[in-house]
Amino acid sequence: MSLEPPAEVYEFDARAVARAIDHTLLRPEATPDQVERTIAEAGEHGFAAACIPPVYAARAAELLRGTEIRVCTVVGFPFGYVQPSVRLAEARRAVADGAQELDTVLNVSWLKGGEVKRLLDDLGGWVSALRGERRGLTLKVILETALLTEQEKIDAARLAVEAGADFIKTSTGVAAGAVAPNVADVKLLVWAAGGHAEVAASGRIADAAGARALLAAGATRLGTASGVAIVRELEDRG
Amino acid sequence: MSLEPPAEVYEFDARAVARAIDHTLLRPEATPDQVERTIAEAGEHGFAAACIPPVYAARAAELLRGTEIRVCTVVGFPFGYVQPSVRLAEARRAVADGAQELDTVLNVSWLKGGEVKRLLDDLGGWVSALRGERRGLTLKVILETALLTEQEKIDAARLAVEAGADFIKTSTGVAAGAVAPNVADVKLLVWAAGGHAEVAASGRIADAAGARALLAAGATRLGTASGVAIVRELEDRG
Repeated sequence: MSLEPPAEVYEFDARAVARAIDHTLLRPEATPDQVERTIAEAGEHGFAAACIPPVYAARAAELLRGTEIRVCTVVGFPFGYVQPSVRLAEARRAVADGAQELDTVLNVSWLKGGEVKRLLDDLGGWVSALRGERRGLTLKVILETALLTEQEKIDAARLAVEAGADFIKTSTGVAAGAVAPNVADVKLLVWAAGGHAEVAASGRIADAAGARALLAAGATRLGTASGVAIVRELEDRG
Repeated sequence: MSLEPPAEVYEFDARAVARAIDHTLLRPEATPDQVERTIAEAGEHGFAAACIPPVYAARAAELLRGTEIRVCTVVGFPFGYVQPSVRLAEARRAVADGAQELDTVLNVSWLKGGEVKRLLDDLGGWVSALRGERRGLTLKVILETALLTEQEKIDAARLAVEAGADFIKTSTGVAAGAVAPNVADVKLLVWAAGGHAEVAASGRIADAAGARALLAAGATRLGTASGVAIVRELEDRG
């Protein structure tokens, strides 16, 4: 038996990890200057996206214009129980402001109440309306796995796939309980998505080893505030 | 020196306390049945309002029709950093659904960034648009005191008063750090509001003594999930 991690973990060098990161600052008390720094860091390190509050989407679009770094913001965040019409209005405003990726949160209350039709109308309507209005949007549905049973995680993932999401994302980073994404959840969601959506692991990702393990498990995005430290750790190793 | 609490605490009997309570269930994982029970309890105990997620406002309006219990829901909750146009759209939808009270959250990021004009345009525009469209709405602005310095609490209270809020509310109950409302904050906000807005204390209120102390300090509403236990405690004492 080997004490080494699985070989596939080493596939992910600093650049590959950076390209997977949703560089995220969504705390309500983050100052405008801190948000600007997060946006700038996403550009400097070649992250996938800068994920910032809705009121800063236009500024992010301005700062990242001409780069490949995408502007990501949140909709119905973090509790997911807004009315469907409000979820759509908020998304439209974000797109008008320049957002290219939208992270929204599944209505966990409806999921627990077995309100499948409402969930599908809500998320499916949201995805199809946005697809019809703007090409190239990346639409992510956050399941808030910390609040779900294993069966609910599977049901939620399938609902998000049926709704047409590009990504299933694990967590807002806000819910009570564990907010660190874990390999078991990523594997479960990859399996449940069956190749019809990608999986993003989000929350507190402690270090480069943690980031690589999530990628090796099948996540293709990492939503974290620790992207700079993680990538520096990998760069320092050469 | 007396070991008794101040005499004014005794002014608040079970009925007076009940009439001040925003009976609140805003956890994203609360099931539809749990939300219905919260709404029913508000009616049974004569609370001021049932405060529930936006998707349940219409149901609350149906269940509480013909009573004096008010339907309260949240807007831009709990992070407060939605675009002003989204804050207004969400409020309009809630009012159309039957909400009579709206609790929204001040943009703490802008407050910390000194964006006074943006804050006033956002909240002031929101209040005045809603006042022009519907009579009898109660509009509350949550400051999220756990994230603020003392000076920021004063500034935020004055901004909310200038914006025309009916109530300044202490907390979403969600923010990191202490979520229990305290007497010192209530006194500070009552002073800062200068009689131009009422003060609502919200978060974890442990028991009847805690509730009475907040009312004695000048709060006229208590936002809590513990209203039933608090009122029963007072009724049991006779």
